[in-house]
Amino acid sequence: MHVDVVFTPDEAGSAPTGIVIDVIRATSTICQALAAGYERVLCAAEVEEARALREALGEGVLGGERAAVRIPGFDLGNSPREYLEPVGGTLILSTTNGTRAVVSAASRCERVLIASLLNLSAVVEDARGHGDDVLVVCAGVQGTPNLDDTFVAGRIAQLLGWERTDAAEASARLVTTWSGAEEAFRASRSGRNLLENAPELEPDLPFCARESVLDVVPRLVAMRDRAAEISLR
Amino acid sequence: MHVDVVFTPDEAGSAPTGIVIDVIRATSTICQALAAGYERVLCAAEVEEARALREALGEGVLGGERAAVRIPGFDLGNSPREYLEPVGGTLILSTTNGTRAVVSAASRCERVLIASLLNLSAVVEDARGHGDDVLVVCAGVQGTPNLDDTFVAGRIAQLLGWERTDAAEASARLVTTWSGAEEAFRASRSGRNLLENAPELEPDLPFCARESVLDVVPRLVAMRDRAAEISLR
Repeated sequence: MHVDVVFTPDEAGSAPTGIVIDVIRATSTICQALAAGYERVLCAAEVEEARALREALGEGVLGGERAAVRIPGFDLGNSPREYLEPVGGTLILSTTNGTRAVVSAASRCERVLIASLLNLSAVVEDARGHGDDVLVVCAGVQGTPNLDDTFVAGRIAQLLGWERTDAAEASARLVTTWSGAEEAFRASRSGRNLLENAPELEPDLPFCARESVLDVVPRLVAMRDRAAEISLR
Repeated sequence: MHVDVVFTPDEAGSAPTGIVIDVIRATSTICQALAAGYERVLCAAEVEEARALREALGEGVLGGERAAVRIPGFDLGNSPREYLEPVGGTLILSTTNGTRAVVSAASRCERVLIASLLNLSAVVEDARGHGDDVLVVCAGVQGTPNLDDTFVAGRIAQLLGWERTDAAEASARLVTTWSGAEEAFRASRSGRNLLENAPELEPDLPFCARESVLDVVPRLVAMRDRAAEISLR
């Protein structure tokens, strides 16, 4: 069995099992929301798509951020700490990099799992159970690699223990250069952006840096137009 | 000043100064050939383009490899150890990943420098002298990142000492996880491919792993149709 990593959704690579990471903070929020009791998460790249989805569905909690802060008129932001209790059945989450990564994975993988550090063991064991090669798809930031998603990719490569491509080996090696996830997150562009734009959200970093505290494996169940429907089914 | 790295030629990024790396072995060969006395190197992606160039020019030493071994009818392979003495003025080198990286850098940088470990200090000092941000373009292997080019990118980021993007920081950190370049090269896909396809070329790895032994800065001087002309001018 092999594990490969793409640092951005545009990079070449494919495998039957895709694992998508946007750890600061979209996929951490998705894992937390589904663990808390939301029935499904609809990921939309654009704010207007998210609004149109709620209009069409007649229901849904609108969540998301731009430049780390809540979108005007939305119910919630993109802090996983806002999703400890469900306030509806459907979460409609506007996340540009995260949605793009899910769509990219869907185009080249038979199944798409959603990973963060919060559900690391669960997603790794699920991927192992399928018995197929794995491609980890990092969301990155606007088409460029970031250290936070790469850290999680490296942890997945380490836990799987399979043969690694050069990108997977690089990710696993990078993990060893930090004392832990929080240090890597604070060094990363996503982490620094968060601290600059919304210093009050600093507690999100240690929150997202906790490993294997949620026993959920979110997966892509359908594309609804350009939105990705994710649930635990 | 900033330094950025793209792990493959397709990744997003731009800067006034571009530095191209295909360390195993195209850019090591280019540096060695120009240091030895070749006047210019024409890099062509396709074998037939290289042949057509010699036909059009009426001169030129044909060099290159496929799957690590010399192309039938070519004068030389792609081992830098074959270029210790010039056997002509113009070297026409067929290198798929290397040419693609040069063309990619030319599309988004004002100037394009060619780097290997052999000329590391020289190229870093030249880049510093321009006083502009740097983008390091790794050739990778068929659109995917590789450890050998990433190692050299990391050494460039370390030597420049400038502010780093996440990709440049990742490269610099990776360097610290090996005892030295040769270990990284042997672990890389390019190195393993070389050892599998042509074990007799194993001495190329320690040869290419020598740092700052050549005082040359090859640069892209022109595109000739789809071929890149590189010289020390």
